[in-house]
Amino acid sequence: MPRALDDLIEAFSSLPGIGRKSAARLAFFLLKRPVEDSRDIAQRIINARESLKPCKICGNLTDDAECEICRDRSRDRSLICVVEEPSDVTAIESIGEYRGLYHVLGGALSPLDGIGPDDLNIKSLKKRIDEGLIEIILATDLTTEGEATASYLLSTLSAGDVKITRIARGLPAGGSLEYADKNTLARALENRTKLDR
Amino acid sequence: MPRALDDLIEAFSSLPGIGRKSAARLAFFLLKRPVEDSRDIAQRIINARESLKPCKICGNLTDDAECEICRDRSRDRSLICVVEEPSDVTAIESIGEYRGLYHVLGGALSPLDGIGPDDLNIKSLKKRIDEGLIEIILATDLTTEGEATASYLLSTLSAGDVKITRIARGLPAGGSLEYADKNTLARALENRTKLDR
Repeated sequence: MPRALDDLIEAFSSLPGIGRKSAARLAFFLLKRPVEDSRDIAQRIINARESLKPCKICGNLTDDAECEICRDRSRDRSLICVVEEPSDVTAIESIGEYRGLYHVLGGALSPLDGIGPDDLNIKSLKKRIDEGLIEIILATDLTTEGEATASYLLSTLSAGDVKITRIARGLPAGGSLEYADKNTLARALENRTKLDR
Repeated sequence: MPRALDDLIEAFSSLPGIGRKSAARLAFFLLKRPVEDSRDIAQRIINARESLKPCKICGNLTDDAECEICRDRSRDRSLICVVEEPSDVTAIESIGEYRGLYHVLGGALSPLDGIGPDDLNIKSLKKRIDEGLIEIILATDLTTEGEATASYLLSTLSAGDVKITRIARGLPAGGSLEYADKNTLARALENRTKLDR
């Protein structure tokens, strides 16, 4: 195999969820397409990586000093939703229902990986707790690390009158009781909600 | 979502087997890694696309005028294995058992897509039929297009004494009779091979 092809397959294999076979498929696909397609994708990779940086307020990705959400004066500034990664902002925005602000931690507490509170954007979150804030929604993942991060934030945020909430645990849409794990099922029962007639 | 991010996700989504969600995952992955990683992958894409071209003998991908296999004097020059794509060469080479040469057609006959004999490297294959050649192995896919291409080649290659063969049809390794389609099962029975005691 020519060196340049091997190098490309190796690069694609280094991406998450792409094994050697898929990487080869991607490489051969690009090699069949016009050279402009390859130049375009290469340029977009470089553009994105070089122009995007953390918003100086919330840590979300932006091509400006402040992200579009922080700049948007129509958003509800009394609510901050705390998430681990910029991709979580994208996920929540895709619902189209949340109108508050965000705070991106840049990860979750993970002592085994050497990630402590100082490695996350926690100080900047504390600075955002001001008069107008009514609620902080802890929307870190429901993994061990995400739960630990939520617990840590709950104990460390001296939020005064600000309400701190956690996203709900329960069965996912389409989920069946039979296959749910005990923990999920227990929480789904515990956090049951009243139905209106 | 910032424009540069959207552009990158769109580019990844255009690759085969990568949906919008996987594309977003790849983009966020790159954005978390050092900028050098993004520059490296972009450079490898451009390098591969610009340096690789068809071997002027067999049509396989190469960074030289002739590919490594055609240049390799230790290969068996009495055998040519005809395949659709350079990726098929990689697949056969990965077995490590075939020692002959290749001929890459650059696709398969597909009247619906407007791909006729003149769009494939068939003329150059005919030119390669010379005194030393003993066998042409038709190793196009066992799809409708691949089978049509194999039939066409069989009828059009005036190969003199050269033997023309087709790769075997049968059950794949690990395959079970119960789930095999009728066509495959019929061929597996028809083309049964004698076992040595």
